[in-house]
Amino acid sequence: MPDLSLPPIDARINEMANALRFLAADAVEKAQTGHPGMPLGMADIASVLFTRHLKYDAAVPDWPDRDRFVLSNGHGSMLLYGLLHLTGYKEVTLDALKRYRTSRSPTAAHPEYGHLPGIETTTGPLGQGIATAVGMAIAERLLAAEFGSKLVDHRTWVFAGDGCLMEGLSQEAISLAGHMKLAKLTVVFDDNGTTIDGPTALATSDDQRKRFEASNWETIAVDGHDPHAVDRAFALARQSDKPTMIAARTHIGYGAPTKQGKSVAHGSPLGADEISGMREKLGWPHAPFDIPEDLRSAWHDAGSRGAAARHDWDGRLAAIPAEKRAEFDRRISGALPAGIEDVVKRAADETARAAEAIPIRKGSQAAIGLLASHMPELIGGSADLTGSVLTRPAELAQLDTDSFVGRHLPFGIREHGMAAAMNGMALHGGFIPYGGTYFVFSDYARPAIRLAALMGIKVIFLFSHDSIGVGEDGATHQPIEHLASLRAMPGIRVYRPADAVEALECWYDAVADAGPSVMVVARQKVVPVRTTPREDLPSRRGGYVLSEADGQRHATILATGSEVEIAVAARSILAESGIHAAVVSMPSVEVFERQPQAYRDQVLGSAPRYVIEAGSSHGWHRYTGDRGRVFGVDTFGYSGSGPELYAEVGLTPPAIAEAILADLNGVAVRRPPGS
Amino acid sequence: MPDLSLPPIDARINEMANALRFLAADAVEKAQTGHPGMPLGMADIASVLFTRHLKYDAAVPDWPDRDRFVLSNGHGSMLLYGLLHLTGYKEVTLDALKRYRTSRSPTAAHPEYGHLPGIETTTGPLGQGIATAVGMAIAERLLAAEFGSKLVDHRTWVFAGDGCLMEGLSQEAISLAGHMKLAKLTVVFDDNGTTIDGPTALATSDDQRKRFEASNWETIAVDGHDPHAVDRAFALARQSDKPTMIAARTHIGYGAPTKQGKSVAHGSPLGADEISGMREKLGWPHAPFDIPEDLRSAWHDAGSRGAAARHDWDGRLAAIPAEKRAEFDRRISGALPAGIEDVVKRAADETARAAEAIPIRKGSQAAIGLLASHMPELIGGSADLTGSVLTRPAELAQLDTDSFVGRHLPFGIREHGMAAAMNGMALHGGFIPYGGTYFVFSDYARPAIRLAALMGIKVIFLFSHDSIGVGEDGATHQPIEHLASLRAMPGIRVYRPADAVEALECWYDAVADAGPSVMVVARQKVVPVRTTPREDLPSRRGGYVLSEADGQRHATILATGSEVEIAVAARSILAESGIHAAVVSMPSVEVFERQPQAYRDQVLGSAPRYVIEAGSSHGWHRYTGDRGRVFGVDTFGYSGSGPELYAEVGLTPPAIAEAILADLNGVAVRRPPGS
Repeated sequence: MPDLSLPPIDARINEMANALRFLAADAVEKAQTGHPGMPLGMADIASVLFTRHLKYDAAVPDWPDRDRFVLSNGHGSMLLYGLLHLTGYKEVTLDALKRYRTSRSPTAAHPEYGHLPGIETTTGPLGQGIATAVGMAIAERLLAAEFGSKLVDHRTWVFAGDGCLMEGLSQEAISLAGHMKLAKLTVVFDDNGTTIDGPTALATSDDQRKRFEASNWETIAVDGHDPHAVDRAFALARQSDKPTMIAARTHIGYGAPTKQGKSVAHGSPLGADEISGMREKLGWPHAPFDIPEDLRSAWHDAGSRGAAARHDWDGRLAAIPAEKRAEFDRRISGALPAGIEDVVKRAADETARAAEAIPIRKGSQAAIGLLASHMPELIGGSADLTGSVLTRPAELAQLDTDSFVGRHLPFGIREHGMAAAMNGMALHGGFIPYGGTYFVFSDYARPAIRLAALMGIKVIFLFSHDSIGVGEDGATHQPIEHLASLRAMPGIRVYRPADAVEALECWYDAVADAGPSVMVVARQKVVPVRTTPREDLPSRRGGYVLSEADGQRHATILATGSEVEIAVAARSILAESGIHAAVVSMPSVEVFERQPQAYRDQVLGSAPRYVIEAGSSHGWHRYTGDRGRVFGVDTFGYSGSGPELYAEVGLTPPAIAEAILADLNGVAVRRPPGS
Repeated sequence: MPDLSLPPIDARINEMANALRFLAADAVEKAQTGHPGMPLGMADIASVLFTRHLKYDAAVPDWPDRDRFVLSNGHGSMLLYGLLHLTGYKEVTLDALKRYRTSRSPTAAHPEYGHLPGIETTTGPLGQGIATAVGMAIAERLLAAEFGSKLVDHRTWVFAGDGCLMEGLSQEAISLAGHMKLAKLTVVFDDNGTTIDGPTALATSDDQRKRFEASNWETIAVDGHDPHAVDRAFALARQSDKPTMIAARTHIGYGAPTKQGKSVAHGSPLGADEISGMREKLGWPHAPFDIPEDLRSAWHDAGSRGAAARHDWDGRLAAIPAEKRAEFDRRISGALPAGIEDVVKRAADETARAAEAIPIRKGSQAAIGLLASHMPELIGGSADLTGSVLTRPAELAQLDTDSFVGRHLPFGIREHGMAAAMNGMALHGGFIPYGGTYFVFSDYARPAIRLAALMGIKVIFLFSHDSIGVGEDGATHQPIEHLASLRAMPGIRVYRPADAVEALECWYDAVADAGPSVMVVARQKVVPVRTTPREDLPSRRGGYVLSEADGQRHATILATGSEVEIAVAARSILAESGIHAAVVSMPSVEVFERQPQAYRDQVLGSAPRYVIEAGSSHGWHRYTGDRGRVFGVDTFGYSGSGPELYAEVGLTPPAIAEAILADLNGVAVRRPPGS
């Protein structure tokens, strides 16, 4: 090992680590539920990181140029809460620690983004932290390329356990990070040889260092309980021109007299006797939650170590030209650029007048191009389907991974890794990421989509080829249940625009509104349904009357996406039989549900309602009630062309008009609902 | 390389490969849609495998001891169809090849299990094939351990592309296979350096051989267009005591004069000119779909190469004791053991009488134990949550990976790999696999669950900790949308039993009925609702009247799982107000929907209906219609105890009784549905 000439380590480092250990063990004991094993095992490593390497200022948790710290093995949350408390994040009080895992506590079982400052992302579902951190490290390089390394120059540190590394998601993350040479990313692998079911040897024989090296990482093995070795490893990681994995051999439940090194230390309170034995063994005579003043002070000093650097950074920010500074501030704050709504309105107007029959995915691409040309924060990518999903408009260059110039990222065939990295980019700040693949493969990314929903961060998951309209690619590639399954998820908006105008309105709503969204677009060409300019961008209300009935409504036809043109055509056929039907376009059920009652009542009307969507009928009965009917697809698709499939499942204007007619004539003899 | 003394290769091997190439290129051209690149690139490798190494008899596609061949890069389906046609699988006619990708064609864009003999699994969603193949290889070893290597001794061969290896799922599969030392598994990596978006260098820098070696695999690099080198590699793989990965350097679109080696060859017809140039370049003067007789004959010989071995095997099967032979036949056929229904009925009766308040997951564990003690085909596992999900009853020993004795598999923290491996075990035959994790992590396994549903194979995905009842573990671990999202999926049954009796009935239905199912069980203790023995195993009807109203029904309360006890208690409270409510337990909506109309009408009744389920309300309005209401959970959960969370979202008997009462009193002034 080269001579690193590192400054001497605080003689109290072991004691400082023990402070973390007892806060964790005692909080779990108090809650009578929780995970003590990991905090006890990683306390030494965490102490070295937070006292000597991590760049942060506990007084200013949202300093944009802070290092990011991600606890991927999120069940060890008490380690993080202890660190945040001791280093002086002021909302992380001793009282908050004592409320660990209790009702509505910010110190939840797993760290939740937004609950406390210093929690950079929500973790718990394994593998997510490491993959999200890759996105943070990408964002750092992109923002540095844009604003310069005087404003943006920080590292991303991850703690991860065996579980994170066994999850396939971690492979996608590791491979992507190695390929992108994310040298400022360091992962500490808590190599404790233990999982819930027993020794890791039960289920894995992987050589983790070799695995990381195969993906172009630097790796270092250390004794995770030797602060000097850990310190040197961190110093080496900071010098590496590759991402670094530090395999730290640790003992789970370190210090627990009978449970150290055993699975039983992982996820249950240690018990009063064990903790008492641990106090003796580690020489910690203090009462639960009682931290000696000198240790408190040492920890507090660590938490303000970065104040000077942060102050210097403030000075550098103040020194740059006002316009650039304002743009940097805007980007970090997430505010939209001024005037963007007018730009969108003008473009929507022009698109309506053009009335071109194009694939909806192409309308989506145009929308991205328009927004991206006014919003440098919009940054995209694709899981190797750029030309099919149309993720890259001409306005965006492909990323160059040496310079990190270019705003379209080749994520590779890694849908899950892409989604998690998008989350990380949004969490880092400065970007609104979107990423695309086929809709049917949204399943691969689902755990990361759920975390975006839970965190309420602004990312846009773009999915094309959104129904049996995919046609020839067959059942494996035809989504059926995906719309229903994503609409059932709280905290996320699903958009399914009907043509290029709605695509633009939906894309604008996705970037303008808070929180994550899913943009679902058809592969096939559609007849435009919005050919009359409307100033009010009606898709932003989620659902709206596209064509009112000619007279008192006999029926209301609700449809989404590529089925709106079918609804419009069915309406015309019905008119020939004297039936007055209104067509409601419903690009987003979630947005519609947020509208005032009176508006919703007016849109839905009181006539029988029919829903057309080329996907599972699951969920639509909320609107059809006792009268009406859902025209959906409740079986898997099959080989054939899109139009053949639509015809066979009865999703054609004549078939639907006929069914509605029969239904309206038979209202008197209807069966009870659900039968 | 050691002297392998391999028999000489047929001099026509290049011509035989070209036959595959032109069948593929011409079928894609005829369909004007499809993927020619991979078949052209892997034709040489496939020819060596199918003429010299793969053990099969095209005349008896379902020979239990055949080698399994899995095309993980399923878009190259025409390669497989060509192989099956030329080797003599009689349903795979030239006409079938000409119908590639047309309406309802068995030669679908991606190989679909059940459409043609010789298709061992459905592939297309990348990474699934390799992970499913791991399950097949596990099943081979398990069945060999049980019935001996004279009956069970075959290999599993996989073709996989860059896409498969970039998917995180492949890492879970590789790691599991290496750990289990599945020496009879061989993966051929089609190392063509190309993906849809361009050269693989755009998105990956992985050293794939090193990566596999890190997981304890043998690796070999070969020129994929040198039949002798490929032949030697296969021979070495057959000798290895580890699973083997052969990195075969190939040219995508091999032979296409201008498109070879380029992304453009991947997924579009080559075009008439290009194909014509390819005919010239490869010296193939024959018309489309015209294969010279001598090549046909050589291929046909390859397809019957295994007939003698198959005949010998028949002899060995005939020679074993009749009882063991009958059991082997039963296991392969998938028939249930005789008398199992009576066993279940007796146990259901006893469980009802015992009326013990236990966690539903514990009832599930008892059901597994009972069934497993009578069904040696029931084989389970867990993604490192054995003691929480209760996947392992005392009747099942943990697998020993040296002897492959033991029927509970430690899958590691690899939910997706576990699910795909389960699929492979079911496809292999001889087993009904189940595997468990927390319900919230079903998202990780979703793409494999969907393939099980599409294939209609009998696997049981067991998920515990099924609602906000999880409590303290917090929002990341509390499922909300998962029931709705799985019920929206075609082809799979979701069960959510209410107590130990229902758990047993549901488990029995899961193993007795065809196709896959999802078993969702609560972590928490419940009051048993089925304390009166019933001979008819009513859960097998999906929904049934648990407690009829005392008089004409004023209301019907539908509930599932842990909420049935709440429904029962609410019914009692309502009775105090003179409201006669029936309680319907609905352990499986899908099974209920298959019942005759008259039965469903009778169960549902015509009184207003209320649904109680601690999950998304999405989908339940089909039963509540214009009157009635869903008591669900449509937001993410949070930190707190299970009972605290239930109370806060209003899922308690008094709150529900009160709401129903108010609702019934207010029927006259109800709003229209959906508002």
